Amino acid sequence: MAARSSLTDLPPLVLRERLAGGAARSAEVADAAAARVESDPAAAAAFAWFDADFARRQGVHLDTQRGRLRSIGALHGLPVAVDDMIDAARMPAIAGFAPFAGRVPEADSAIVERLRSAGALIAGKTAVRELGIGPAITSTDTDAPATAIDGCVTAVARGAASLGVGMSGDGALIRSASASGVTAYTPTFGAIPRRGVRDVAPSLDVPGVCARSISGVALLAECLFGNDLADPSTEATPHPQLLAQAGMTPPVVPTLAIVRTPWWDRADPLTQEGIGEVAAELGERCFDADLPEIFADGLIHAERVRLAEAAKNLFGTRQRYPGAVSAELTALLEQGDAILARDYLAALDWRAVLYAGLEAVLSRCDAILTPAAIGPARPGVAPEGENVFNALWTFLGVPCVTLPLLETPDGQPIGVQLVGRRGEDGRLLRTAHWLETQLTNGSA
Amino acid sequence: MAARSSLTDLPPLVLRERLAGGAARSAEVADAAAARVESDPAAAAAFAWFDADFARRQGVHLDTQRGRLRSIGALHGLPVAVDDMIDAARMPAIAGFAPFAGRVPEADSAIVERLRSAGALIAGKTAVRELGIGPAITSTDTDAPATAIDGCVTAVARGAASLGVGMSGDGALIRSASASGVTAYTPTFGAIPRRGVRDVAPSLDVPGVCARSISGVALLAECLFGNDLADPSTEATPHPQLLAQAGMTPPVVPTLAIVRTPWWDRADPLTQEGIGEVAAELGERCFDADLPEIFADGLIHAERVRLAEAAKNLFGTRQRYPGAVSAELTALLEQGDAILARDYLAALDWRAVLYAGLEAVLSRCDAILTPAAIGPARPGVAPEGENVFNALWTFLGVPCVTLPLLETPDGQPIGVQLVGRRGEDGRLLRTAHWLETQLTNGSA
Repeated sequence: MAARSSLTDLPPLVLRERLAGGAARSAEVADAAAARVESDPAAAAAFAWFDADFARRQGVHLDTQRGRLRSIGALHGLPVAVDDMIDAARMPAIAGFAPFAGRVPEADSAIVERLRSAGALIAGKTAVRELGIGPAITSTDTDAPATAIDGCVTAVARGAASLGVGMSGDGALIRSASASGVTAYTPTFGAIPRRGVRDVAPSLDVPGVCARSISGVALLAECLFGNDLADPSTEATPHPQLLAQAGMTPPVVPTLAIVRTPWWDRADPLTQEGIGEVAAELGERCFDADLPEIFADGLIHAERVRLAEAAKNLFGTRQRYPGAVSAELTALLEQGDAILARDYLAALDWRAVLYAGLEAVLSRCDAILTPAAIGPARPGVAPEGENVFNALWTFLGVPCVTLPLLETPDGQPIGVQLVGRRGEDGRLLRTAHWLETQLTNGSA
Repeated sequence: MAARSSLTDLPPLVLRERLAGGAARSAEVADAAAARVESDPAAAAAFAWFDADFARRQGVHLDTQRGRLRSIGALHGLPVAVDDMIDAARMPAIAGFAPFAGRVPEADSAIVERLRSAGALIAGKTAVRELGIGPAITSTDTDAPATAIDGCVTAVARGAASLGVGMSGDGALIRSASASGVTAYTPTFGAIPRRGVRDVAPSLDVPGVCARSISGVALLAECLFGNDLADPSTEATPHPQLLAQAGMTPPVVPTLAIVRTPWWDRADPLTQEGIGEVAAELGERCFDADLPEIFADGLIHAERVRLAEAAKNLFGTRQRYPGAVSAELTALLEQGDAILARDYLAALDWRAVLYAGLEAVLSRCDAILTPAAIGPARPGVAPEGENVFNALWTFLGVPCVTLPLLETPDGQPIGVQLVGRRGEDGRLLRTAHWLETQLTNGSA
């Protein structure tokens, strides 16, 4: 953490308690976030839009409401960093693309609506890759680890917000969190609605959350779950008690399956070793599982869907602003342009086949244990790395969590990823919390 | 009708009453269907598989059950012709493709399950175009009107079954019925589940029903409606009382909108004249409506979706049986092969835009009045013609009915098509019944 401890460095549940008890006020929290943005260049770079006055005014307003009504909702007064792909009324939304400067949405996305009704303080809009899919935001400072792909992760890691919400189509949120030492969670596809979110690849795009703890991501996700009629990928299901579930002691001691995936060789030695140590620490509670042969092409299918849909969704933007799209993104989208409908549809069909194969593993464990990224952040290189440890899970729509449980000898964080069954988000969070407790009380 | 009147020529509700009252037995009905298949080559050609003994055994069994239980369900004893794209356990399903000879499904489709639980007699499997999308089945007899595209329509028209159920991805069922002088109805997309049905273009494929009357199609469709978990395009909705609704007097006198569509010139003069006469007969109850400009490309979008999905779904079959697919179908699928994913996805997006445009018309009337086909059947030419008066409606997922209300001077039937709002199937059938009453009591 960059500066001395401030309110925004507190665990969200602790801060929430202080706010509820009157030991802290939302206006002070807003000031603490602003102070962090002012003093820490990495925190500042995490935001595409930040307005200290506006944050403070929200804080004052929330404090006034608390005076009248006690608590508005589960997030009352907590500052949440919102990814720039997610619209918030009257806050600019540039989506990492200069020609969109000046675009200010009039309506809140479903996500921001829910944040507001839970009493959250919208800390600001955080930086995203170009149009949500382009090259990563890299720091020019080659001595420091590069800024994470997802600004909302950096905002949380640097204490400029207590919680963050961001979009991911290939697990970038998980990778960013792994490299930044925070906890991130992308729920089952369709659990959080995307009305008011800029599409990249709608079959894959999933809103995810980050915080410095499992309870933080559970708290935030619980406020965002639930169907919305404008997003046909969401379904009406009973509202899960994610926070309560995450805190429960598992009814039986969990079992994890370590899945090295066909891409294990792409992980660096420290990551391989770290994940191996976690498995060793768990002993009998962890078994080795291989994915069936057909998974070897899983990333090809996932990438085909992602690029074809991105090429379609960004086609109009490329037409309208010729030359404005970076060469790297143009090259990526041109790959998408060339994909045939037949191949795209065949790739989509693989989801059901591969998920059936994955169920064979998931039915024998509480969660899969696997790397969150190919390795830790390295100086001058964006920690985007490759998405080999993420894109498959996103493609299959399964919930994923990364926990900051490992670090390199020089102190760079490495995430440990857990993957669960579709729709069993509470169980995944509960298992993640159990794992955290096991390893922080143990010796790994 | 070919031969002298038999039980299968009776209106389904009349036959049902006779069966219920003991004035007829299902075994006799099965024999009547078999007699028709034996005596009428067109009726025989309608079937891909017909087994007189098996039909009779079903009839005897249904009669026995009636003796014990009175009635099993709404279709008890009525012979239903089932399209060969729709699986029925232990009955061959060739899908109009010779290399599939010998394929006998082990499980019933959702449709056949529902037919059986309503007590229907599965009369046989009816002929379909090659793989459900290839060139029409044409009669070699150039003096007689060609056999309809859909065997289930011919089976009903020739009295070899009381009711028929068939698949349609571009309105072929409506065109076949128009050319054959029967009533056909394709419900709102997703109303009838497709588990156990061979896919052609899953975004468009819709099960439809045919009979010699509106009450027949309402009776059959009501038994088939309802969601199925294996078909994600279906939704859990309250079960509509289609038969009762079709028979109701409209609460206010209906209003129709005549929509000539951008393809009016493709209709032959007799069809144009006939539809115009229906409108004239309705006087003030019918107004002219134009579709917005953007509809001019509607068929291009629909065809793009249909061919891209067909190319994908039939890819494996083409690989496995090189040379077995006809030159015409190969040419069609090669068009599908070349469609880019980006263009396919953009075409799919047009559905929402065009439906919004259509709602502007549908909100001002009870149904749209439009041709069912470009013209009547002509000798030696399959009445497939072009799908210009059908493919748009199928693309938009709206319910359609064709009524045999017109005929050429030499007695060839011409259908009149009514199109309704998504989900308002009961209202469409009620309006269709009203129109039928108006015109058969009137002078048109």
